[in-house]
Amino acid sequence: MNRKELVEQIKLKKSYLCVGLDTDSVKIPAHLHNEEDPIFAFNKAIIDATLPYCVAYKINTAFYEAQGLKGWAALEKTVNYIPASHFKIADAKRGDIGNTSTQYAIAFLKQLPFDAITIAPYMGEDSVKPFLQFEGKWAIVLGLTSNSGAHDFELKTLEGGERLYEKVIRTVASWGTPENLMFVVGATRADEFINLRSIAPDHFFLVPGVGAQGGSLNEISQKAMNKEVGLLVNSSRDIIFASSKEDFASAAAAKAKSYAEEMALFIP
Amino acid sequence: MNRKELVEQIKLKKSYLCVGLDTDSVKIPAHLHNEEDPIFAFNKAIIDATLPYCVAYKINTAFYEAQGLKGWAALEKTVNYIPASHFKIADAKRGDIGNTSTQYAIAFLKQLPFDAITIAPYMGEDSVKPFLQFEGKWAIVLGLTSNSGAHDFELKTLEGGERLYEKVIRTVASWGTPENLMFVVGATRADEFINLRSIAPDHFFLVPGVGAQGGSLNEISQKAMNKEVGLLVNSSRDIIFASSKEDFASAAAAKAKSYAEEMALFIP
Repeated sequence: MNRKELVEQIKLKKSYLCVGLDTDSVKIPAHLHNEEDPIFAFNKAIIDATLPYCVAYKINTAFYEAQGLKGWAALEKTVNYIPASHFKIADAKRGDIGNTSTQYAIAFLKQLPFDAITIAPYMGEDSVKPFLQFEGKWAIVLGLTSNSGAHDFELKTLEGGERLYEKVIRTVASWGTPENLMFVVGATRADEFINLRSIAPDHFFLVPGVGAQGGSLNEISQKAMNKEVGLLVNSSRDIIFASSKEDFASAAAAKAKSYAEEMALFIP
Repeated sequence: MNRKELVEQIKLKKSYLCVGLDTDSVKIPAHLHNEEDPIFAFNKAIIDATLPYCVAYKINTAFYEAQGLKGWAALEKTVNYIPASHFKIADAKRGDIGNTSTQYAIAFLKQLPFDAITIAPYMGEDSVKPFLQFEGKWAIVLGLTSNSGAHDFELKTLEGGERLYEKVIRTVASWGTPENLMFVVGATRADEFINLRSIAPDHFFLVPGVGAQGGSLNEISQKAMNKEVGLLVNSSRDIIFASSKEDFASAAAAKAKSYAEEMALFIP
């Protein structure tokens, strides 16, 4: 999905919600464990219920890899089930030397129908560029993350006064365009939103950390929206585990709907 | 495998060679494509042939993920095939917020019998610590990598004069011990080996970049060995693709043997 199509979907739905499929097998409702593939059964029901309220799904690969072969099978089924109307993100935090990054890019952007993959920038240019070679596909590079560990390196200051995350966003931005690059910006970093937007005025930000991690949708939207919205705000646990009972899908829909209704207030 | 056992294996074999199973399906010999699982058939033959000359195998997960479900199956079969005498590394470059890193740790260190997994440090403490909770298992954190992109961020200088990779190694070292933490140090960084060893005198270094990437085994061994050797030097393409014909396994064995013979000269 290219930028124009993504912006159209956001304006059509008046939502920039991304639903995070961090499908933890120990948290899915008990009755689903009778299904042949409980993880996919859970995801399918969540997708069916939340489709009207979101524009994107983010599959957190860790939860699938932890289930081994059957987890990888559930991941493949899930991404293939999401309709073409929705932007599909592999939240995989990959990145390696060039020939290896090329293999990761093939895995997620070619063999699987993801639109985007999240990337860790530590290893620099040749670790990121292989993800920028696919028409209509995206690399979403870690900028400033929502977790406490962001203070260890991301927020450290470099010689000359720039902080590492600022250097990363400026440098990575020069390797691609706002048509094939986004940045991960944690919802808990409210103090930095205006600065982040000034560094990358045109790029989309993927913003996790709303809900369970405590970030404010209101504050992100006020401070970091650009003229084409430029935000995909993700919520995972808060939506998909809104209920642990048989009503889990309708509870997820209600939660997603309430996010979308709040988002509609901010859409120009 | 704990540190004492690893050091014993190194001294017994007089080798600190790690064979990298970057098994690119387009590079494996043509006759293997008749096998039910060509990737595993290739790996099995390489492992059988190189076992006497190495102490570790490193599975580069990207090459398996690029093959989808059958790739993940080949990865599982391969790690289960490597005997307990050999240290097993998942070269996966993972790292995410705490609850997600915990899932990656379960995937590789608990569900699969890897001894270690490589980790990207950008997201800081809570992204690394979940990998340090398993007795006899290891996190191998990126320090200074072999690729050209290391200049983009890793080699940048922070306020106060420390370079980012130095800060990363010093900080990460404080989160664990030389019993559960190693660092990735590229073989092409000869100018930095003495400095690297002074920052982390007791830790093992996993050193990729010998062979295809141009690093010198002699220089690493002279400058970065410690009293318990403290090195796992990896070669991937140079060994496993030494021949593209039916003699690929014996060609790999010959190449691994020649590395091991050079290494024996440096073992105290």
